[in-house]
Amino acid sequence: MSLKEKYPVYLYNTLTKEKELFEPIHKESVGMYVCGPTVYSDVHLGNIRTFLSFDVIYRYLTYLGYKVRYVRNITDVGHLVSDADEGEDKIARKARLEQLEPMEVVQQYTNGFHQVLEMFNLLPPNIEPCATGHIMEQISMVQDLLEKGMAYEVNGSVYFDVTKYNEKYDYGKLSGRKIEELMESGRALDSQDEKRNKIDFALWKKASPSHIMRWNSPWGDGFPGWHLECTVMSTKYLGETFDIHGGGMDLIFPHHECEIAQSVGSTGKEPVKYWLHSNMLTVNGQKMSKSLGNSFLPGQLISGDHELLDKGYNPMVVRFFMLQSHYSSTLDFSNEALTAAEKGYKRLVEGIKISKTLQHSEGNVDGDLEEKVKNAIDQLFTNLGDDFNTAKALAVLFEMTTWMNNFKTGHMKSTGLSSSTFNDLITHYQGFFYDVLGLKEENEGNNQLLDGVIDVLIKLRLDAKAGKNYELSDKIRDDLKQIGVTLKDSKEGTEYSID
Amino acid sequence: MSLKEKYPVYLYNTLTKEKELFEPIHKESVGMYVCGPTVYSDVHLGNIRTFLSFDVIYRYLTYLGYKVRYVRNITDVGHLVSDADEGEDKIARKARLEQLEPMEVVQQYTNGFHQVLEMFNLLPPNIEPCATGHIMEQISMVQDLLEKGMAYEVNGSVYFDVTKYNEKYDYGKLSGRKIEELMESGRALDSQDEKRNKIDFALWKKASPSHIMRWNSPWGDGFPGWHLECTVMSTKYLGETFDIHGGGMDLIFPHHECEIAQSVGSTGKEPVKYWLHSNMLTVNGQKMSKSLGNSFLPGQLISGDHELLDKGYNPMVVRFFMLQSHYSSTLDFSNEALTAAEKGYKRLVEGIKISKTLQHSEGNVDGDLEEKVKNAIDQLFTNLGDDFNTAKALAVLFEMTTWMNNFKTGHMKSTGLSSSTFNDLITHYQGFFYDVLGLKEENEGNNQLLDGVIDVLIKLRLDAKAGKNYELSDKIRDDLKQIGVTLKDSKEGTEYSID
Repeated sequence: MSLKEKYPVYLYNTLTKEKELFEPIHKESVGMYVCGPTVYSDVHLGNIRTFLSFDVIYRYLTYLGYKVRYVRNITDVGHLVSDADEGEDKIARKARLEQLEPMEVVQQYTNGFHQVLEMFNLLPPNIEPCATGHIMEQISMVQDLLEKGMAYEVNGSVYFDVTKYNEKYDYGKLSGRKIEELMESGRALDSQDEKRNKIDFALWKKASPSHIMRWNSPWGDGFPGWHLECTVMSTKYLGETFDIHGGGMDLIFPHHECEIAQSVGSTGKEPVKYWLHSNMLTVNGQKMSKSLGNSFLPGQLISGDHELLDKGYNPMVVRFFMLQSHYSSTLDFSNEALTAAEKGYKRLVEGIKISKTLQHSEGNVDGDLEEKVKNAIDQLFTNLGDDFNTAKALAVLFEMTTWMNNFKTGHMKSTGLSSSTFNDLITHYQGFFYDVLGLKEENEGNNQLLDGVIDVLIKLRLDAKAGKNYELSDKIRDDLKQIGVTLKDSKEGTEYSID
Repeated sequence: MSLKEKYPVYLYNTLTKEKELFEPIHKESVGMYVCGPTVYSDVHLGNIRTFLSFDVIYRYLTYLGYKVRYVRNITDVGHLVSDADEGEDKIARKARLEQLEPMEVVQQYTNGFHQVLEMFNLLPPNIEPCATGHIMEQISMVQDLLEKGMAYEVNGSVYFDVTKYNEKYDYGKLSGRKIEELMESGRALDSQDEKRNKIDFALWKKASPSHIMRWNSPWGDGFPGWHLECTVMSTKYLGETFDIHGGGMDLIFPHHECEIAQSVGSTGKEPVKYWLHSNMLTVNGQKMSKSLGNSFLPGQLISGDHELLDKGYNPMVVRFFMLQSHYSSTLDFSNEALTAAEKGYKRLVEGIKISKTLQHSEGNVDGDLEEKVKNAIDQLFTNLGDDFNTAKALAVLFEMTTWMNNFKTGHMKSTGLSSSTFNDLITHYQGFFYDVLGLKEENEGNNQLLDGVIDVLIKLRLDAKAGKNYELSDKIRDDLKQIGVTLKDSKEGTEYSID
């Protein structure tokens, strides 16, 4: 029985508002689309959380044995400063301000985005398509929607006709909004508006003469509306109906609602089987926002260079911290919580290091212990399978970490476990740490050598103490202290920490 | 006087076969286009050399104060297995073999390409456009060439009419080939051929029903010819005429020749002012090729995991090694040459470290020394300005490294130099190392701490020796040796090396 047969996955579907059994359209493979960043500024921490959440989902489904095609786009055109289909394109605006070609802005922030994700150990998606690379496909879909009467052209722009769509289908079902309420709320159309109804949205916008990012179309020079690219690219690379569509909660309306309308309006088919949304970040209990001054960038979190941060944190500590809460809950940043996460993360890393030194010896299997360990392994899977509950899986890893320590000190004996259960324990303990949760030891590389050299000093000091040469043992401690290495003695031996 | 006014640049232009003074079209800014990889397999070492050569050119022009827009493309469609406009698309072929969506192949090898370039410390270009992202622009150019009578359509494919073009312009001027000779050599057209003449090349190819990578066009479903993308993307991002176009020597014919024909045929203008080409790699004097079994990948060069390699080399050693020869000369890989480069690189790194500890003291300026140092600084620039001669610039850096050592030991006094000359020396010594040649100290990060801890041990050992406690001093040496750290004593003190 393969892992994916043994451990079913349940996920909360925003569309049905229920936790459902995950049954992919094709038995062995999964198609997953996640809305990527608009690359006109540094990626913010909320984005990181979203992409990290889906990184774990991608990793877990792969761990179970699914062949996952994970598509995450780059929005490099069409995202306007205002959500009301007005104002400048975000990238063109940045390009104008910085006197750059728009594609230079795109390149700069795409590179930065990739660097930050790599720092947090996110896997790259299988396909990372960009909107400007799919203009022709977008024009085709606009033509199709026009032909099907779901859209109308005005002065070189094309709008999606929500009212018309709603006659046949159900607009608002993802976000739970009613079209009547949407029609009543917000600003009324004025005489300048080209839209028939204020809830209509742009599929194609006419480019003003000064607009740099423009392409020729049947309606003249213009550029695609923001919602269109995701529909077009997910269809192209995953098909008209695919398994999972993810993104931040703030995208449910209007972005994902519009995606559904575009797909259904064009193909008549429901595009996505499971809609998944990750929640927001808060800082000390308040919404993270630039205007409140409590918004820090990923890099600042690492360097500690922000007035709200007591110090910097290793990217793996931040990743661990984010995994401690469920993706659909808000996540609150505070120095206390981060410091606590740092401790937890270090404890886990110690356990992983120990797990690499352990070996099994045959002996009398202890039935209770065997059962307990098997249950814990099952729980790793059932927790991740319970709408990807990383927090609960971490709790199980901590229980296992205690065992690792006990194996090391001899409080627990590997002889109490059958060889296969012992191997499963080590395999999945490490597998969940590295492969599923995407954690790794900080500063791998040379740390091993550093460990070794400091160990030589610790042993010299022990010898010196044993020979009552306290002058030398103190000197070793003091010399190390001076370069930022602190030795700490305990019953288990001497450990070091770096300031 | 700015650096770029003080130090003119001369470069060898493949088009004129002469070394020319570099005069950019716009005084302050430079447009540079370099042909990037076709992303259907791991990037090979020859590619790395090409991109590294242009990385230094990009870096040096930037160092001089030019605002450089550096565009390097990704070929993700249209490059056929055979150069004769026949056979499968390289990416589609790989996708079929590996049962992947073509864009998954593109993503995988694009990621790998970026990782390798980062390992060798190449700067990303300002814009990295891909062919599939510019299908519309390519279709426009095909239409334009058809309208101008420079191309003809046959069965849904469009070919460039070289003979027709040659009546008005000069086909072959970059590669020095004559159209008559090209017409005579090679395989004759057969009845299946759609081309009017065998030297014609494809602008647009009709897609067979099974071809996955396809776009709609005025000539039916198809895909662009390989030569077209570079013309279209360089024009879009750098204009109809720009400063520098680079690539490997193997691209001169037919690729760059065709680019010129496409541009001139369409705009009537010469697209590129300076054509630059980098030379090939050899291994132990033989051409590097898969069939000879002497072709290793960048990763193998680092790991040492290839039968021709005695050991692995740090990426910065490889970079240093490549910089030791001029980009337009062949570069021969051998264990001896790499080992020699390793020594040279380490010596240079030592000099850089010393340069960071030096301070100037006012005193009596030594006129001869002052003159000598000023000349050497000038030579850094004139060597780079002499068609980017990195080999000669490295020689000057080595002379400066000797000075750094002499400053440290006191054989040379900073008082012999005026403060401004001393500062210029340090600035450009470091500037050429880091910014122009793109070198860096290997394993930065934790090495400082490792240095410090080993230093504690070295001093303990010195104390032990002084106290005639040879047991302890030997123990320290032996313990370190056991974990791979070798101490070496010399007149200047004790140094360590890592196995």
